[in-house]
Amino acid sequence: MKAAQFFARGDIRVVDVPKPEPGEHEALVAIEWGGICGSDLHEYEYGPIAIPLPEHPHPATGNHIPVTMGHEFAGRIVSAPPGSGLKPGQAVMVDPRIYCSKCSRCNAGSTHGCTTLGFKGLSGTGGGFSEAVAIDAKLCYPLPDDVDLSLAALIEPLAVAWHAISLCDARKWSEKSVLILGGGPIGIACALGLRARGCNQIFVSEPTATRAAQNKQVSDAVFNPIHENVAEKCREVTGGEGVEVVFDCAGVQKGFDAGMDALRYRGLYMNVAAWGTPMVVPFVSYILKEITMKCALAYDDNDFRETVDAFVAGKFKGVETMVTSRIHLDDVATKGFDELVHHKDNHIKILVTPDKSKV
Amino acid sequence: MKAAQFFARGDIRVVDVPKPEPGEHEALVAIEWGGICGSDLHEYEYGPIAIPLPEHPHPATGNHIPVTMGHEFAGRIVSAPPGSGLKPGQAVMVDPRIYCSKCSRCNAGSTHGCTTLGFKGLSGTGGGFSEAVAIDAKLCYPLPDDVDLSLAALIEPLAVAWHAISLCDARKWSEKSVLILGGGPIGIACALGLRARGCNQIFVSEPTATRAAQNKQVSDAVFNPIHENVAEKCREVTGGEGVEVVFDCAGVQKGFDAGMDALRYRGLYMNVAAWGTPMVVPFVSYILKEITMKCALAYDDNDFRETVDAFVAGKFKGVETMVTSRIHLDDVATKGFDELVHHKDNHIKILVTPDKSKV
Repeated sequence: MKAAQFFARGDIRVVDVPKPEPGEHEALVAIEWGGICGSDLHEYEYGPIAIPLPEHPHPATGNHIPVTMGHEFAGRIVSAPPGSGLKPGQAVMVDPRIYCSKCSRCNAGSTHGCTTLGFKGLSGTGGGFSEAVAIDAKLCYPLPDDVDLSLAALIEPLAVAWHAISLCDARKWSEKSVLILGGGPIGIACALGLRARGCNQIFVSEPTATRAAQNKQVSDAVFNPIHENVAEKCREVTGGEGVEVVFDCAGVQKGFDAGMDALRYRGLYMNVAAWGTPMVVPFVSYILKEITMKCALAYDDNDFRETVDAFVAGKFKGVETMVTSRIHLDDVATKGFDELVHHKDNHIKILVTPDKSKV
Repeated sequence: MKAAQFFARGDIRVVDVPKPEPGEHEALVAIEWGGICGSDLHEYEYGPIAIPLPEHPHPATGNHIPVTMGHEFAGRIVSAPPGSGLKPGQAVMVDPRIYCSKCSRCNAGSTHGCTTLGFKGLSGTGGGFSEAVAIDAKLCYPLPDDVDLSLAALIEPLAVAWHAISLCDARKWSEKSVLILGGGPIGIACALGLRARGCNQIFVSEPTATRAAQNKQVSDAVFNPIHENVAEKCREVTGGEGVEVVFDCAGVQKGFDAGMDALRYRGLYMNVAAWGTPMVVPFVSYILKEITMKCALAYDDNDFRETVDAFVAGKFKGVETMVTSRIHLDDVATKGFDELVHHKDNHIKILVTPDKSKV
């Protein structure tokens, strides 16, 4: 079958690989749609980072380069183990995580903190930029038959945002004001997740025109950090106090400085970004406002379940605004990765399908 | 009367000033003891920082250089307004803060977050390195007659630590393991405060011999960050998991790196230090362990009241280990500030008295 594999930095190729053979507890899933994640792009531009090299195979999978990419994917069941409750043709969203279920963190329910955490599509054993994946049946979340599987693939980044929102430990989102730094895939997923939880004071800082336009549809205002003082704007719309929570989905120092400035006294700065440069704490804001800073990584089982449920219940209103392009698997390098390298600002999420009839 | 005033960086002089005349709601307190704070030393070495210049008088006091220093002080009442419950000769500890009681933060009980927060001894209107201070009677906390007022002056730094400990929002300190970075005045005050709350896994990272010896008396172990891998040591004594809370009372990057490494999954990093250099987040620890970072500044009314109560109840066992020297006011520049500049590592707290009979 066809699979887009990562061989080296800047070298992703669609090659022919054996069809996966599901193990005892595994379902075989025919992929319909997979999304290109920011971390995939990071691997393409600067990697291999998380993708294992032959000299350091992934501790959980034993796999290494070349690795089939794609960890945000949805499809339909081809075969499933008895007792799994899954039947052929069943639409499913896949939780792509690989965790041991044995370490102290897994035992405490924080499976996303597993000491050997991996992801299908990054750590080996197949990924969503292919025709099929074999995966533990308990990681397949059934979806209604009539679901749009291209949008269902967005459940994975939505779960990343859902987890960060849950980690805030903030009740009553309807009373909270929020600034999101960066209107990319995770930024807009945060806006959608916050809306789903009743938040109605969502402000986004986003400098590029396409992303700003998309974010406007799912937030209360979009500020341009190049032309506007974002912290001042936040104070203006919050009676002078500043916002209660900042979600950093940009991971750049200028955003960090503005976000900490925009927070009110005792506000919360939630980092959901993977930083590539030193993260220097704006100390005056930090100490004078006694700010709390947290960092969110991926999602746990509950987050994924809740995100699937919210998706099925139609709570992510405007989720289609996340999608800026749908392409065929054959074109994943040129119209997917290269397009994002050269025209990142025009995109939020590019979706990939192995089915020619769908694009 | 005599008062030690800050004129400029490196220039603190004992001069003759008029005796303060208490206002309607003010008590006159005869100073017995005052402590030299790290922030005082900071002003002496690098200031003026918080001490206001003539071109920018303090918004609450209207005062500026020269300013009488000392914001950690205890003494006895000379006179007090009727109805205050204070009588001449009464031993008192003074809350040195100046806050407006009107802004949104004061109204919410966070008087230490007051937008015009000041301190007696830094922002003007007199300070503890003098013979007497006039201060709002409600900021005078009565102490038992037989109290050791030199130790009572330590209530102020103890309140700083108490506040940081309270801000952790951690119940059951008896089950928690803690690493304190830096065994200076605030570090040892954290150890004392944690002990007072039942914590019995207190580890301190301190490189200098004198401070290490003092800290050993009030903690479970002292690690030397120059010769030991502090994070490894913390894992060793916590079954491999790392500590639950770090108190950063050092404010140096090497400590930050080690402290974040020493934390267990979902641990809390509480900063109680004033950083003079960029604070760069050790990102891998931060994200992989989903660490929470908080920052504590000063103390509020409750913190001060609770610290006074704990002090009077004898809960700060070994509090005398904080004191490394007692000097006369006349010698505050040479045996106080200069001594700390040149031999900081030999000291934790130097106490100053205007009473020759006491030293």
